[in-house]
Amino acid sequence: MGQDPETTTEHVCDRYQAAFEILGKRWNGLILRALADGPRRFTEIARFVPDLSDRVLSQRLVELEELLIVERAVDVSHRPVLVEYSLTPRGRALSPVLDSVHAWADKWIRKSSRAPAK
Amino acid sequence: MGQDPETTTEHVCDRYQAAFEILGKRWNGLILRALADGPRRFTEIARFVPDLSDRVLSQRLVELEELLIVERAVDVSHRPVLVEYSLTPRGRALSPVLDSVHAWADKWIRKSSRAPAK
Repeated sequence: MGQDPETTTEHVCDRYQAAFEILGKRWNGLILRALADGPRRFTEIARFVPDLSDRVLSQRLVELEELLIVERAVDVSHRPVLVEYSLTPRGRALSPVLDSVHAWADKWIRKSSRAPAK
Repeated sequence: MGQDPETTTEHVCDRYQAAFEILGKRWNGLILRALADGPRRFTEIARFVPDLSDRVLSQRLVELEELLIVERAVDVSHRPVLVEYSLTPRGRALSPVLDSVHAWADKWIRKSSRAPAK
């Protein structure tokens, strides 16, 4: 509205690429899926994604927090202190993306044609 | 159906990760978008994604062909020979994914919070 359509398209493409870079970063799709049903502790996420090391999981959670997709809540009334991670509204808004990737992968990816491991 | 649900979940997660690795690889989202409206020549795709070098575009097209997402058709009745790239049924089935990423990016990604460039 009131914007040059070509400029708008360019900006959308930038954001689209940025979105794919977040989602395409190894493990992020699975971490987001681990949080899809509600808040989880670090160890619960780690159990959901067995091949992911604790070091990389910590890194990814920090990155996803910086992107305002995941938030970290500390409940000090617990002993020991309870730390939980959950999706922000922005993170929850990704659920149609995760669902559509899931549906596609389920139908179209077979072992013989999987993307080569990085 | 008839499968151990836990095993099934594991396999779906593998495929889900594989799907994200394809989609998350830099430029793939934009290349797929360039082909969304029909067959395109190499130079047309290159024009659609201006920052992408010809060398990397060639690489990506070969990879997407190997993944049976893109196909290459050669029309020898043209002079010079006409080479066009298009989405396979598997590639076209990605359109709900691309649309949902687009909708999310359009709403939730702002310049201030974009994924850092690689």
